[in-house]
Amino acid sequence: MAELTHFDTKGDAHMVDVSEKAVTSRIAVAEGSVKMQPETLAMITEGRAKKGDVLGVARLAGIMGAKKTADLIPLCHPLPITKVAVELTPDEALPGVRIEATVKTTGQTGIEMEALTAVSTAALTLYDMVKAVEKSMVISDIRLKLKDGGKSGLYEAD
Amino acid sequence: MAELTHFDTKGDAHMVDVSEKAVTSRIAVAEGSVKMQPETLAMITEGRAKKGDVLGVARLAGIMGAKKTADLIPLCHPLPITKVAVELTPDEALPGVRIEATVKTTGQTGIEMEALTAVSTAALTLYDMVKAVEKSMVISDIRLKLKDGGKSGLYEAD
Amino acid sequence: MAELTHFDTKGDAHMVDVSEKAVTSRIAVAEGSVKMQPETLAMITEGRAKKGDVLGVARLAGIMGAKKTADLIPLCHPLPITKVAVELTPDEALPGVRIEATVKTTGQTGIEMEALTAVSTAALTLYDMVKAVEKSMVISDIRLKLKDGGKSGLYEAD
Amino acid sequence: MAELTHFDTKGDAHMVDVSEKAVTSRIAVAEGSVKMQPETLAMITEGRAKKGDVLGVARLAGIMGAKKTADLIPLCHPLPITKVAVELTPDEALPGVRIEATVKTTGQTGIEMEALTAVSTAALTLYDMVKAVEKSMVISDIRLKLKDGGKSGLYEAD
Amino acid sequence: MAELTHFDTKGDAHMVDVSEKAVTSRIAVAEGSVKMQPETLAMITEGRAKKGDVLGVARLAGIMGAKKTADLIPLCHPLPITKVAVELTPDEALPGVRIEATVKTTGQTGIEMEALTAVSTAALTLYDMVKAVEKSMVISDIRLKLKDGGKSGLYEAD
Amino acid sequence: MAELTHFDTKGDAHMVDVSEKAVTSRIAVAEGSVKMQPETLAMITEGRAKKGDVLGVARLAGIMGAKKTADLIPLCHPLPITKVAVELTPDEALPGVRIEATVKTTGQTGIEMEALTAVSTAALTLYDMVKAVEKSMVISDIRLKLKDGGKSGLYEAD
Repeated sequence: MAELTHFDTKGDAHMVDVSEKAVTSRIAVAEGSVKMQPETLAMITEGRAKKGDVLGVARLAGIMGAKKTADLIPLCHPLPITKVAVELTPDEALPGVRIEATVKTTGQTGIEMEALTAVSTAALTLYDMVKAVEKSMVISDIRLKLKDGGKSGLYEAD
Repeated sequence: MAELTHFDTKGDAHMVDVSEKAVTSRIAVAEGSVKMQPETLAMITEGRAKKGDVLGVARLAGIMGAKKTADLIPLCHPLPITKVAVELTPDEALPGVRIEATVKTTGQTGIEMEALTAVSTAALTLYDMVKAVEKSMVISDIRLKLKDGGKSGLYEAD
Repeated sequence: MAELTHFDTKGDAHMVDVSEKAVTSRIAVAEGSVKMQPETLAMITEGRAKKGDVLGVARLAGIMGAKKTADLIPLCHPLPITKVAVELTPDEALPGVRIEATVKTTGQTGIEMEALTAVSTAALTLYDMVKAVEKSMVISDIRLKLKDGGKSGLYEAD
Repeated sequence: MAELTHFDTKGDAHMVDVSEKAVTSRIAVAEGSVKMQPETLAMITEGRAKKGDVLGVARLAGIMGAKKTADLIPLCHPLPITKVAVELTPDEALPGVRIEATVKTTGQTGIEMEALTAVSTAALTLYDMVKAVEKSMVISDIRLKLKDGGKSGLYEAD
Repeated sequence: MAELTHFDTKGDAHMVDVSEKAVTSRIAVAEGSVKMQPETLAMITEGRAKKGDVLGVARLAGIMGAKKTADLIPLCHPLPITKVAVELTPDEALPGVRIEATVKTTGQTGIEMEALTAVSTAALTLYDMVKAVEKSMVISDIRLKLKDGGKSGLYEAD
Repeated sequence: MAELTHFDTKGDAHMVDVSEKAVTSRIAVAEGSVKMQPETLAMITEGRAKKGDVLGVARLAGIMGAKKTADLIPLCHPLPITKVAVELTPDEALPGVRIEATVKTTGQTGIEMEALTAVSTAALTLYDMVKAVEKSMVISDIRLKLKDGGKSGLYEAD
């Protein structure tokens, strides 16, 4: 089984040395969702047209959140992000909003934390904007969907 | 039904005016979890003793994350946080780690986004530290558990 | 004539001592504009409906920019912002976009730098989003329109 | 006519994918000015010698501002800045202070937003330091003067 | 003997609850020094006049550093700083530069970390600016000189 | 003797142009210490086991501090850090705690400020966590121990 790489042989946390790793193109896709009452979802989807663009604000916060990853996650390496896209899709079956973030870099280590942070920040922002209407929303199922580039190659969630 | 307060009458996003609201003691408690394989959980709980304190690093990241809330969430007011505690509890029944954050302020608006951000940041950090072992972990069930103080009074999740 | 308060008697820069000043309600309104070709303006105003909400992104950046003021301006005091609104209005007579920011606080010193920073950040963001279309846009006429609260009282630009 | 590249085909804002662009040397020069009363300008220029170095503080703030560009402008890529110089020149003909910023990078996209942000931040800082003397100062004529490097090549303002 | 207040009864780190503490005027003074070769010191003191204001840049960095304290120190509470002054004094007897920072707040907990962070940041900046001339400079004797306000009252270093 | 490279020929501060320098592997090691009463040191070393991991929190703060260097030090270039390790070693002979930080990058300029900032931030955090027990602790002897990579080659402190 793999090891916890963020600790040295004494068990002390460190930022892993990636200086010998190759600079390669890397991509990561993460997803998650915010579950809510059908009435709350209706307010968001209708609002897009006239009362206020909840999904647009959450999308932008997700993009900016990706850029703050190394500031938020203690042992993350700063990476030169080359692309961020965040998609928020209302889903009546949840009911709620599905979030998917795609992030790219050309760097020495993987970009999955940036994708996960983008999804989390978009979800938190959506919660913030709608909490006056419903406090019982739940942020769920945030996970890595796909990752590629670097020595470990392609990973796809089941 | 309540309104989306973060938009004005034209539908434009704004930071809500709280200047006339009273300065009161406020508290919020949020929770969430990171689900994983039993073997992954075992590595974390055993590691605490000798291989590296995953939960200690995630706890600290959660505390610092609470202080970054107004920087992450576009329409959040900056608040003078007076307390943050983040608890991470391994739970073999999940299997995974349960996270709970308690945040206090003496301010003009609620502190629930800080509690939710603390939980999210702790969860992301835990993911980061353990992802070399298991990429399929899922961050789930992040929600507001309790909120008190201010005009709207006590809220408790079911 | 008044003095340059940000320097002490030796001419060294310092953050002015406001600890003896009263905590009062304060407001500031700043304005500015981004001038451009009529075709560029048309693309922005039409885009709002279908190609992308330039003004919405710039508005949000302006609101977030206000929160970063004390981080950007070396001798600014951090202030607990209680309201930010940023309005962007297309004006064919410029031609271009007029920006106005209103910021409030309950604090010990004025909030005018936050209003000016909100306008500047919204203007820079608008430039960023439209620069692929026109690089010759000009950010102009950023000034304080109104300021009230505190010992010095009401200020209104001519 | 060019397109608004910061939006995808659905009109959603995104951070443009630059991962396939070549890493090249890039430079940008931006300029702007702060207009004021002649007496205010005299106080600044005399102050440099004995009462306090307004221009030195504004210059430093401009340099640091360039480093915060990707944090301020939502859809900006983070870039490894390799040089920043900010020049502030008193001009009695304005009357006021002219600001010029030169920024370089070796990266995958242009550095003009960093140059414009440096000018804006220097201008805001100058306003902050002198506002006790004159609130009616105006920040004006911030524009891109020159840009080179990358596929689009040299741009010079008229 | 006193306890380590930043840990709870289980030994877990937390941000101490200060919500029940009174809001009082608080002050802290910290000091430190950067030791160097006499020739290096001479270059700094002469440079002030014509080659570049090393001490002015370090002073400004110290002031801005105070504002970043809660961002740098994990368990520090964010505090509304009401004054920062940083003094740098060349001392041929060291030889080197003595640094003293005075910080004030009106808040619920002490401001000593802000004063110590201001001194540290000024010292690091001085090192950065002079390192091309001498790499063997040493930052030393950073300590709290005075602290007042709050329940624990006046503290003065011997 | 060398020159103060952070100033141009007019004596104005600037961020040095490194765009023509080669991208090379670079390493820096810095050290420092926090001196305290023997009883305070005993509390820290015993606490590691049961009362709270002071050294673990300070280590993490040091790692995160390295990532904030370009934000703290005005004329520092942002660098893509590829490794950070911070070691804190109790030393009864001081008595106190010795701190050593090792930082690596692959970039166009040296990484010594990141190593020094990591040591300073770890020291400040240790002070913060223990100050309720002893306010008279002193942060001392922060210096560059080793630096390699780039044109100037190896530097080792005596």
